Amino acid sequence: MALDPAARGLLDDAAVLPAGRTDLVLTHDMLVEGVHFLSADPPADIAWKLVAVNLSDLAAKGAKPRGVLLGYSLRNTDWDVAFGGGLGEALSAMDVPLLGGDTVAYPNGPRVLSLTALGDAPASGVPSRDGARPGHDVWVSGTIGDAGAGLAVARGDSEGPAALVDRYRRPTPRTALGVAIAGLVSAMMDVSDGLLIDCARLAEASGVEVALDLDAVPLSAAYALTVGGTREARLAAATSGDDYELLFTADPGAKDALSACSAACGTPIARIGAVGEGSGMRVRDRGGGVPLPARLGYQHGSPQHRT
Amino acid sequence: MALDPAARGLLDDAAVLPAGRTDLVLTHDMLVEGVHFLSADPPADIAWKLVAVNLSDLAAKGAKPRGVLLGYSLRNTDWDVAFGGGLGEALSAMDVPLLGGDTVAYPNGPRVLSLTALGDAPASGVPSRDGARPGHDVWVSGTIGDAGAGLAVARGDSEGPAALVDRYRRPTPRTALGVAIAGLVSAMMDVSDGLLIDCARLAEASGVEVALDLDAVPLSAAYALTVGGTREARLAAATSGDDYELLFTADPGAKDALSACSAACGTPIARIGAVGEGSGMRVRDRGGGVPLPARLGYQHGSPQHRT
Repeated sequence: MALDPAARGLLDDAAVLPAGRTDLVLTHDMLVEGVHFLSADPPADIAWKLVAVNLSDLAAKGAKPRGVLLGYSLRNTDWDVAFGGGLGEALSAMDVPLLGGDTVAYPNGPRVLSLTALGDAPASGVPSRDGARPGHDVWVSGTIGDAGAGLAVARGDSEGPAALVDRYRRPTPRTALGVAIAGLVSAMMDVSDGLLIDCARLAEASGVEVALDLDAVPLSAAYALTVGGTREARLAAATSGDDYELLFTADPGAKDALSACSAACGTPIARIGAVGEGSGMRVRDRGGGVPLPARLGYQHGSPQHRT
Repeated sequence: MALDPAARGLLDDAAVLPAGRTDLVLTHDMLVEGVHFLSADPPADIAWKLVAVNLSDLAAKGAKPRGVLLGYSLRNTDWDVAFGGGLGEALSAMDVPLLGGDTVAYPNGPRVLSLTALGDAPASGVPSRDGARPGHDVWVSGTIGDAGAGLAVARGDSEGPAALVDRYRRPTPRTALGVAIAGLVSAMMDVSDGLLIDCARLAEASGVEVALDLDAVPLSAAYALTVGGTREARLAAATSGDDYELLFTADPGAKDALSACSAACGTPIARIGAVGEGSGMRVRDRGGGVPLPARLGYQHGSPQHRT
């Protein structure tokens, strides 16, 4: 496991992070057993996801990760050993050090995990959700819907390749892409609750309308072969969540620079719509206007089983 | 409640902290209902303590608080309202902004709270536990044992003034003193688990022996009147924990400067012993050598009810 000098060997009460030349971006998330993950989920995958979702938040700010602090409820069981292994794997794969944290003995009740991630802000300024302007393009990275389809496979609700389950259990934060394009975008966020609901949030924060071309929403081959490419399959992809892709808007003049960043990072991007005057969302495909489904994605504020 | 511009109105996924000219000190703690606090404890006091214990960790590093991130399990009850009130009170009293965090809906099971605190490291370098050298003095701030006596009163195990209960429920982090003396001390930590066990940890980390004069351990008038000043009363004070005072060592030549800092901060300090060659701890009082009690304070690693 990557243990940074800042962690002081984890023996001290606090970590010390050298002064940065840039602003610091901070994010703090909590995962609760039975709410955000289930007891039967592989512990190594939970560790991976805990790190990945926080680094995805940083990526959406164009922030280069500096380190994480972990809050952990320990029971001294095989679960803990597997979790530790997955944590080390994730930190190593995502190249981010563990700076410290807190371990609490907690023999009963649901497990609780918390993570704080810190990153260096881009010199060009930290993108937010409120900068989209009429005339800008709407983009998304990677492919959409894989995690949702993977969850259905993991639950035994449908059949499909392990690649989809992997996309659900081990999302890839788009760190390199987020850092590369931070200075080119007018607004950026990550897609965690569903493409449609997150587009609606971006539209609301920016005071604009977002018009999506459902046919342009990028699907993986595995998704297309498993779920299909119909309007219904595309709406399912765009409302299922847990994608951890980057959703961003940019002036059309930034297209070539964005494509160059995408190529350099090895992460595809797709133009999926346009920003217009007004408010809310509009969706169309080759068949014309698409009525918005009642459920655009996960809604916060009520407890829900995400796994 | 102090809401910093860095928090971006708490509407974004991440907080942005302006670049500091100094290193950053980070600490992350988790409190679990039934382990670190009880359901019947006043929620406003739990909020206060959550902030105070983290700022006490920063104070021991001589770090000036920059902000905190809160992880919170919400049930939308009166408890949450009272907790929020206490949190606002604590942040205001301790002059530290809420930068952001995560709120998870969590209707069942024990409440879980997590807090990350960030502070600016002192320009003179961050004190640690391992710098005590033979010939140095051992000091402690404030008074010792009040929280332990207050816990007994709160439990109904003994009678005593509300001031003692207050010291248990609403500890005061020694922020100003910690910042002021960071450049004068050779080692520093906060007393959270008991003076004796924390002295033993400092001795072990520094590879020295700590010799304590039990009669010099500072007691409050409330403690003296309630528990007394006998050897037994002093040993109880020195092993009861939750003091959140600063324990530090310094060259004898620093005495006048330390006293000046203490006066400027309005926080008394007391010389309670000396660092010597060797290892471990020795305790004496006017009656001679004092056998070490079997229990020096709270031991980590096993679940325990601290309240």
